[in-house]
Amino acid sequence: MSKIAVINPNLSEGFTRKVGDQARSIVGANTDIIALNPQFGPASIEGYYDEAFASVGLLSVIRDLEAAPDHIANPIGGYVVACFDDTGVDAARCLTSAPVLGLCEGALRMAAAVASRFAIVTPMPVSVRPLEHLVAKYGAASQCVVRAAGVRTLDFEGDGADAAYQALKKQAKASLTEDRSEAIVLGCAGMTDIADRLKDELGVPVIDGVSAAVKMIEAMAMLGLHTSKVGAYASPPLKTYHGMFSGFAPQG
Amino acid sequence: MSKIAVINPNLSEGFTRKVGDQARSIVGANTDIIALNPQFGPASIEGYYDEAFASVGLLSVIRDLEAAPDHIANPIGGYVVACFDDTGVDAARCLTSAPVLGLCEGALRMAAAVASRFAIVTPMPVSVRPLEHLVAKYGAASQCVVRAAGVRTLDFEGDGADAAYQALKKQAKASLTEDRSEAIVLGCAGMTDIADRLKDELGVPVIDGVSAAVKMIEAMAMLGLHTSKVGAYASPPLKTYHGMFSGFAPQG
Amino acid sequence: MSKIAVINPNLSEGFTRKVGDQARSIVGANTDIIALNPQFGPASIEGYYDEAFASVGLLSVIRDLEAAPDHIANPIGGYVVACFDDTGVDAARCLTSAPVLGLCEGALRMAAAVASRFAIVTPMPVSVRPLEHLVAKYGAASQCVVRAAGVRTLDFEGDGADAAYQALKKQAKASLTEDRSEAIVLGCAGMTDIADRLKDELGVPVIDGVSAAVKMIEAMAMLGLHTSKVGAYASPPLKTYHGMFSGFAPQG
Amino acid sequence: MSKIAVINPNLSEGFTRKVGDQARSIVGANTDIIALNPQFGPASIEGYYDEAFASVGLLSVIRDLEAAPDHIANPIGGYVVACFDDTGVDAARCLTSAPVLGLCEGALRMAAAVASRFAIVTPMPVSVRPLEHLVAKYGAASQCVVRAAGVRTLDFEGDGADAAYQALKKQAKASLTEDRSEAIVLGCAGMTDIADRLKDELGVPVIDGVSAAVKMIEAMAMLGLHTSKVGAYASPPLKTYHGMFSGFAPQG
Amino acid sequence: MSKIAVINPNLSEGFTRKVGDQARSIVGANTDIIALNPQFGPASIEGYYDEAFASVGLLSVIRDLEAAPDHIANPIGGYVVACFDDTGVDAARCLTSAPVLGLCEGALRMAAAVASRFAIVTPMPVSVRPLEHLVAKYGAASQCVVRAAGVRTLDFEGDGADAAYQALKKQAKASLTEDRSEAIVLGCAGMTDIADRLKDELGVPVIDGVSAAVKMIEAMAMLGLHTSKVGAYASPPLKTYHGMFSGFAPQG
Amino acid sequence: MSKIAVINPNLSEGFTRKVGDQARSIVGANTDIIALNPQFGPASIEGYYDEAFASVGLLSVIRDLEAAPDHIANPIGGYVVACFDDTGVDAARCLTSAPVLGLCEGALRMAAAVASRFAIVTPMPVSVRPLEHLVAKYGAASQCVVRAAGVRTLDFEGDGADAAYQALKKQAKASLTEDRSEAIVLGCAGMTDIADRLKDELGVPVIDGVSAAVKMIEAMAMLGLHTSKVGAYASPPLKTYHGMFSGFAPQG
Repeated sequence: MSKIAVINPNLSEGFTRKVGDQARSIVGANTDIIALNPQFGPASIEGYYDEAFASVGLLSVIRDLEAAPDHIANPIGGYVVACFDDTGVDAARCLTSAPVLGLCEGALRMAAAVASRFAIVTPMPVSVRPLEHLVAKYGAASQCVVRAAGVRTLDFEGDGADAAYQALKKQAKASLTEDRSEAIVLGCAGMTDIADRLKDELGVPVIDGVSAAVKMIEAMAMLGLHTSKVGAYASPPLKTYHGMFSGFAPQG
Repeated sequence: MSKIAVINPNLSEGFTRKVGDQARSIVGANTDIIALNPQFGPASIEGYYDEAFASVGLLSVIRDLEAAPDHIANPIGGYVVACFDDTGVDAARCLTSAPVLGLCEGALRMAAAVASRFAIVTPMPVSVRPLEHLVAKYGAASQCVVRAAGVRTLDFEGDGADAAYQALKKQAKASLTEDRSEAIVLGCAGMTDIADRLKDELGVPVIDGVSAAVKMIEAMAMLGLHTSKVGAYASPPLKTYHGMFSGFAPQG
Repeated sequence: MSKIAVINPNLSEGFTRKVGDQARSIVGANTDIIALNPQFGPASIEGYYDEAFASVGLLSVIRDLEAAPDHIANPIGGYVVACFDDTGVDAARCLTSAPVLGLCEGALRMAAAVASRFAIVTPMPVSVRPLEHLVAKYGAASQCVVRAAGVRTLDFEGDGADAAYQALKKQAKASLTEDRSEAIVLGCAGMTDIADRLKDELGVPVIDGVSAAVKMIEAMAMLGLHTSKVGAYASPPLKTYHGMFSGFAPQG
Repeated sequence: MSKIAVINPNLSEGFTRKVGDQARSIVGANTDIIALNPQFGPASIEGYYDEAFASVGLLSVIRDLEAAPDHIANPIGGYVVACFDDTGVDAARCLTSAPVLGLCEGALRMAAAVASRFAIVTPMPVSVRPLEHLVAKYGAASQCVVRAAGVRTLDFEGDGADAAYQALKKQAKASLTEDRSEAIVLGCAGMTDIADRLKDELGVPVIDGVSAAVKMIEAMAMLGLHTSKVGAYASPPLKTYHGMFSGFAPQG
Repeated sequence: MSKIAVINPNLSEGFTRKVGDQARSIVGANTDIIALNPQFGPASIEGYYDEAFASVGLLSVIRDLEAAPDHIANPIGGYVVACFDDTGVDAARCLTSAPVLGLCEGALRMAAAVASRFAIVTPMPVSVRPLEHLVAKYGAASQCVVRAAGVRTLDFEGDGADAAYQALKKQAKASLTEDRSEAIVLGCAGMTDIADRLKDELGVPVIDGVSAAVKMIEAMAMLGLHTSKVGAYASPPLKTYHGMFSGFAPQG
Repeated sequence: MSKIAVINPNLSEGFTRKVGDQARSIVGANTDIIALNPQFGPASIEGYYDEAFASVGLLSVIRDLEAAPDHIANPIGGYVVACFDDTGVDAARCLTSAPVLGLCEGALRMAAAVASRFAIVTPMPVSVRPLEHLVAKYGAASQCVVRAAGVRTLDFEGDGADAAYQALKKQAKASLTEDRSEAIVLGCAGMTDIADRLKDELGVPVIDGVSAAVKMIEAMAMLGLHTSKVGAYASPPLKTYHGMFSGFAPQG
């Protein structure tokens, strides 16, 4: 039995449920999914400012999971950071020795294996540059472009959902011809349920970050891979943390 | 039930059995592994020249699998090219709509998720530059170095196996300090059984390409991902092939 | 009269005083320096994990300064993030329209103007990869290498200070010959007082990040430059923040 | 007397004659041109799949030339791979010590010497990404774009030739303004006879790959340059080849 | 008292006066500005050819300043090369130990601190590629595009000034939407007086190279930074210069 | 009959004779070599400062050649700038429509065709960074390293010649093992006569820039290639030049 924690770093419980359900629907029979979100932080994550706070929330969830009584007997085999900005992934890799993956990293890896060029379509323009930095960090700058649909994340829920979908599809379609994209990556965790529709309507692979990252971390967990504790992801050196963060002080 | 074909593009049946066994030992209960090699081509793959011939052998195996009577009812869900040079992967992606992954690509993706810098250690110096080109193609040039152990692939079998292992370990260890590597990628399909030993002796993650690629393609197959048929991996246009390759003519 | 806030994102008040004094000693007569640190967070910043917490502390200081009664009449003209990891700089640029600069960015800009190749020497190995990522982000990867002295930040204070200095000097000197560096950048805010000594002993320019960033932000403030509010550094969109971060919710 | 072999890796003898004639028309009086094509393989080369087979055909021609009785007394001084995809060039460099050049490499080198930015215009969209990979491999990514005319190679022969020319010219012209290209590279071996017309009509340099590669290899042959046998292009290590490829086994 | 020399490498004295006045209006009370131009060379600098001659003129001014009787007692603290092509900056860094900065370098550094993406708008198309090479050299290629207004430098003076401004504004505005630029850099020294107008009309930061470079060099001079005399900017080795350049022979 | 001008931009007539002889010994029977140097400028070219003056000298030679009475009837077919720093090449491309090539560009193109990795070995350390910038500009940064022998150019003449050769050979040999170089490029025009000796002693290809550039420009001249007059190398716009440069004013 393998245990995967899918952590939504924003505060929307509906969203946490959604990504948890999606994760459960695609993992193997021996994989157990825990879907959680922090108890503090932003309601959604759009841009660098939100990310700074969501990172701390993410770390709080990992800390609590690893401090839980059953953690030694039955440890988490891998973590998915269920946000397309890969918020806090580097810090999380310092905190735990289980592998950690963000949606962007997972999605780019699978997209690159099925398409020679592809596009990320994200809701908000404010996310384009942060995503371009991630794309460069992951080495995909020569094959991946980032476009924004010009809608907000929450627009994909409720009455405006179809209008949001159409805005996103318009950018995806434009990318196929203008950017010569061969596949589309959904640039937000909240889009997991529109992947199939978009794939059918466009006739190209559509990669959902939740699915890609969950399956990839499940694969890594089954192989027993751990984050290297030498170098950049070494456990944080022992030191004092003050004030409201005192509970986060590294134990060295 | 998902069916994954692991194709060893060289002619060594012992080697095919070895990677097949390794693949079977790590996939889920619902995944069926077929391990095959071509009927013609080089006995091992070391450098650009061998690759040219092994590519055709690889394509012959895929062609035959996709022409088999049961292929429509029970298609292959994904292909692993069981060679660390990712021989013929681009051509194979044109031939089939199932996802195709080489060992190098699979291994680099997992290595990048557990280490900020890492090294590929490959047997022969002649492979270093071809692997550096792959590393650049996969966008990992700023975090991955390639080293050669100075032994031949077959040295890892039989009486010289320990000496070969020691040569490889020496380079891996040197990379941890000289290159600040945080993990080691085994740069050859034939090394799958030494990953655990090396990991224990060095204390850093050791990534075996067979394991990484098989688990990643299994994940992609389960998600129903297909290679994009728009752009670089489109089906080859209809045309005549002559002479001993006439049976490979694309059907358009 | 121009007002520059130098924010030390860690909790060491001695350190805050030190960088404040250094800043005051180099700015013009019409520039007022405010040196502050957050009330919560890590005692020092070494690697990705500490950064995640220090970012929030940094943002809390900026928020409080901009909410202060005299802010409208006498606004802050620029912010220096007095940490060489440039912790939270992107998020801070979203929060304020005053220009924001980290020590690494400031130091790299001046180093590149006086040397064709140079090295950052930082205390801890755990900081090397985060700094290499900054160097790449700032476009200096082809001219800047990062080395670690193998000492901790606090070693530069008190009895071990000379040993720490010698360790740092050894790496700096090695870089002049082995990396063909032409100048040295001190990769930590706490080293501001050793710049002159090192310059005299090595005979090459030594750039201290505090000095570089403070003078550069003072220059930008005097020119009336503001952070662009279009694109990546736009004000964070209005939304709810929960729990202990509720006071940080963007006002839209 | 210098002997240059121009090898068309596809099976079109008319095409082989055409590139042979073009080569003969531009070399010096002391250079002898041999134009050949393999006896097996694809009728034309469009994309990765065709390339895999054409590479083997190319190698068969080189092998046979180097095994010919007069080869020792009167060796080939250089090889041109007369395909713009530079099919099999790396493998060919392992097989022979004479220098080997593809059309793309030759054309890019001359284009970069007469223009600061330029475009490759190729017939088929399926070739755009393979050519972009070549452009990156040859270090020209910051100055060269690739466009497709949307016609097939054979369209440049017979009744549709003018329509094909107009489609190509349209893309070339668009590149001058939209991409700020300063010269045009013809991205196919079959276009050698339209270079002059296009140059006259557009008023910018037009580089034909056959001419560029033949003259460059002629220059290298006259200088007595040989492919390095140390490293990536070392002679393939001795090994067994099986089945229909047994005749290609390297002699070590 | 600090002394900064602002050298206009072209022969327009009106232009020299303009940049001198601009420099004086922004430096601190203790900074003395000397604005000079050479006695020989081109009337304006547009492209590589003009640059070759302007470089020598620039060096003649620096040589004369450093040979002046009061130079030892009251040395120049820093040089600004008041041309956006950064003409002769590398050579000037060899000639003097004072820091030297061109307008492009100064402007890019400040632009990158206030915007994640930005555009240089320059008068003439012939300058676009030289500026793109500078942008790449300064490591800003992934965040900076270059556009030309299609007017000549002198058009910004006299009757046609408003038409020239409108042409420039049109390109700047287009860049905000088409290139997602977040700030505009004025790509010519002669535009210093339109920065405020453009900023007001576009609502994004507008960076003037003269202001940016003068303030940055003033900051560096105050910090006592000198150009490294080890490596690329070492004093030129002693040798003979002939003919009309004999007076420029390095003294070793 | 084709006419190639080989211009040594420094003032050493012995050197001019040497490169002229070398050029004549390798071109075809129908190629006429003119070897010239300017009448003013530095005695040798080592680093950025010398380059600034040598560029003007180079342009003076081209100007005079193109103004000569027989130029229209019998124009120069191509120019070689016989300096490994490619001094003034961009400006020269603006001045003439004949193709222009520096030694570095010519040598890198041939080296890349016979080796997957290679090293430039240059006499003086001061040239290393300027050459690294050229290497990057020519797109060879991932396959070419630059080393200095630590001797001066003139050391290759007279009594110290063998010591200079041994110093160079030592660096070349070290590069074969330490950098995995597969070929050596001689990084100075004055080394043309040691290429054969070094090749014999090291057993790898040794590329001499004079030979490479002369043969490549001869090839381009025979193909009738001209420098594009659209974009970066357009003829310099009409303007006034003052003082001692008045004779260089572009005619528009």
